[in-house]
Amino acid sequence: MAEASPNQTWPHLAGAIRDGRHVLPVRIYYEDTDFSGIVYHASYLRFMERGRTDYLRLIGADHRALFEAASRETPGFAFVVRSMGIEFLKPARMDDVLEIVTEPDEVKGASVTLSQRVTRDGGVLVEATVRVAFVSGGRARPIPAPLRIALRADRARARPGAGNETLTMVGAGGDDMTGQVP
Amino acid sequence: MAEASPNQTWPHLAGAIRDGRHVLPVRIYYEDTDFSGIVYHASYLRFMERGRTDYLRLIGADHRALFEAASRETPGFAFVVRSMGIEFLKPARMDDVLEIVTEPDEVKGASVTLSQRVTRDGGVLVEATVRVAFVSGGRARPIPAPLRIALRADRARARPGAGNETLTMVGAGGDDMTGQVP
Amino acid sequence: MAEASPNQTWPHLAGAIRDGRHVLPVRIYYEDTDFSGIVYHASYLRFMERGRTDYLRLIGADHRALFEAASRETPGFAFVVRSMGIEFLKPARMDDVLEIVTEPDEVKGASVTLSQRVTRDGGVLVEATVRVAFVSGGRARPIPAPLRIALRADRARARPGAGNETLTMVGAGGDDMTGQVP
Amino acid sequence: MAEASPNQTWPHLAGAIRDGRHVLPVRIYYEDTDFSGIVYHASYLRFMERGRTDYLRLIGADHRALFEAASRETPGFAFVVRSMGIEFLKPARMDDVLEIVTEPDEVKGASVTLSQRVTRDGGVLVEATVRVAFVSGGRARPIPAPLRIALRADRARARPGAGNETLTMVGAGGDDMTGQVP
Repeated sequence: MAEASPNQTWPHLAGAIRDGRHVLPVRIYYEDTDFSGIVYHASYLRFMERGRTDYLRLIGADHRALFEAASRETPGFAFVVRSMGIEFLKPARMDDVLEIVTEPDEVKGASVTLSQRVTRDGGVLVEATVRVAFVSGGRARPIPAPLRIALRADRARARPGAGNETLTMVGAGGDDMTGQVP
Repeated sequence: MAEASPNQTWPHLAGAIRDGRHVLPVRIYYEDTDFSGIVYHASYLRFMERGRTDYLRLIGADHRALFEAASRETPGFAFVVRSMGIEFLKPARMDDVLEIVTEPDEVKGASVTLSQRVTRDGGVLVEATVRVAFVSGGRARPIPAPLRIALRADRARARPGAGNETLTMVGAGGDDMTGQVP
Repeated sequence: MAEASPNQTWPHLAGAIRDGRHVLPVRIYYEDTDFSGIVYHASYLRFMERGRTDYLRLIGADHRALFEAASRETPGFAFVVRSMGIEFLKPARMDDVLEIVTEPDEVKGASVTLSQRVTRDGGVLVEATVRVAFVSGGRARPIPAPLRIALRADRARARPGAGNETLTMVGAGGDDMTGQVP
Repeated sequence: MAEASPNQTWPHLAGAIRDGRHVLPVRIYYEDTDFSGIVYHASYLRFMERGRTDYLRLIGADHRALFEAASRETPGFAFVVRSMGIEFLKPARMDDVLEIVTEPDEVKGASVTLSQRVTRDGGVLVEATVRVAFVSGGRARPIPAPLRIALRADRARARPGAGNETLTMVGAGGDDMTGQVP
């Protein structure tokens, strides 16, 4: 094919994983603001969902074998938001370039708690804790072990030493529907 | 059931048909505006889609037998937008109450051209001509005759005398995939 | 004027206050859903903001004198969201009619905590606690006493007996118009 | 400053100008789709607005002196959409990478007509002609000559030979800053 693929032409379109955290740049456009002059509060949820989607996209690229194993086990899987806690600390404005930082906080048997931050020039504008449930075929399912391994590999990189604790903590109470947790 | 249904509690939620035209009230909220202080231009497309959806909903209620006959012929049918021409004449602002006026302009064999206006206190803010194609089972289909009859009944009420011309005009060129057009 | 005003033509456009709670009907349109077939999670924040906006609108109509006193004291005031906790319990779908129920949970000196629910046929789909700060002239301000009185009047109606506690509790530190609110 | 600026870290965030045309990559997320499984029609207007905004941003970077001259003459200027014609040819879907292609079609005294296309892998999904009016200080104004020169420089690159005709054609009636443009 003569034409370059979009991923080659725009290498950072899905953001990047740095130190185990996913970082996605987001530009503020007219559509994101409201007449009060600042970014509309629900727009940040759209940005954070973009971050989660691209985070999963890059995990899939980085840990392809694990991801394909998970896909075979639970085809068409997705994560759906079950609950969120959000603090709106400072406003963003038209033309700002924000970075959406996403990292797994706790990987359980059937859900993942993510920590997400919206930052500008390193300062935090919005902070959120988001619990997403694993869904396949229209209903909640245990997260396949290969996918949990991939998620925890990132977490271990983000917080050296913390990865093992989580594994122990989560496995201890029987919070594992498959028994295959490493 | 002790509780009243939403349609009884909120009788005008889907707007109303007046003189063959569908009228839907729309309140302007934060989400509809942008930092320039006025309504974001793409918001009007959302309002006009609400108008088309509720127009079809009320046609379905007013002409139930025709609508059910159409549904049997083409289950799960929908109209999808093929093209639009839009003039943005005057801006709307936060807290405004707008009326979205929708009427069929031309009912053909497989598509309908609608005339839509966004008004405030009777003055026109946005004018659009929208061509929608009839789709069922994922592909374009001829509009079932009963549905065309229902659409044209409204058009005849909106423009007395014009209804017949259209019927003649559209039927004349063989622009009818079923032959059942009255 | 020959033409009826929108508020006369569409009497329930801003919802209604029932038993001290504001109830706003919201129809689900294409714009509110996503390709997974259900309502996009951030859409509920738009609905809840509509509920808060219309709740304030109706308080303004019901307690006009109090509201006008507040407006003189703090012109162009608004409430801005500081934090939210949200539980997404069940999905809504295209064409659903939802009711957004809003009630003040705690009225403090400079912020209000609201309890909001998204319901369908009486069942709760989404539950949220929303803390909004009072802002006038671009910065946080104490809520003028007349506005707090209006908000608490609704709360007292929603939860007989609870209103007084809150008044006492919050009022203790100097609950007046002079900016001494703790 | 130790930290890299967003523009250095994410070099293509505002797209790129290629052969006189602005190209902006846009990823499709949940927020852009609807329950019919494809991209919601009004989402394309948001994408095209992003394209226009970043096109102007890059013109400002490429022709800084001209742009600064225009900004001195008409501070806080913006382009607002006056009319659009749109053809929806093929649907886009979740996860698609689209390119929004924007080029000036005609640069007049007080407005610009832009040609915009939404493409995927080189195929056109949506085509639009958008007329934007130049606004400064809240009202329509003649486009300052330096800005028109910058816009036409791009057009000349996009369509060799055509640029001069336009310059002649539009310039004929008094192509200057005095408001005499036809």
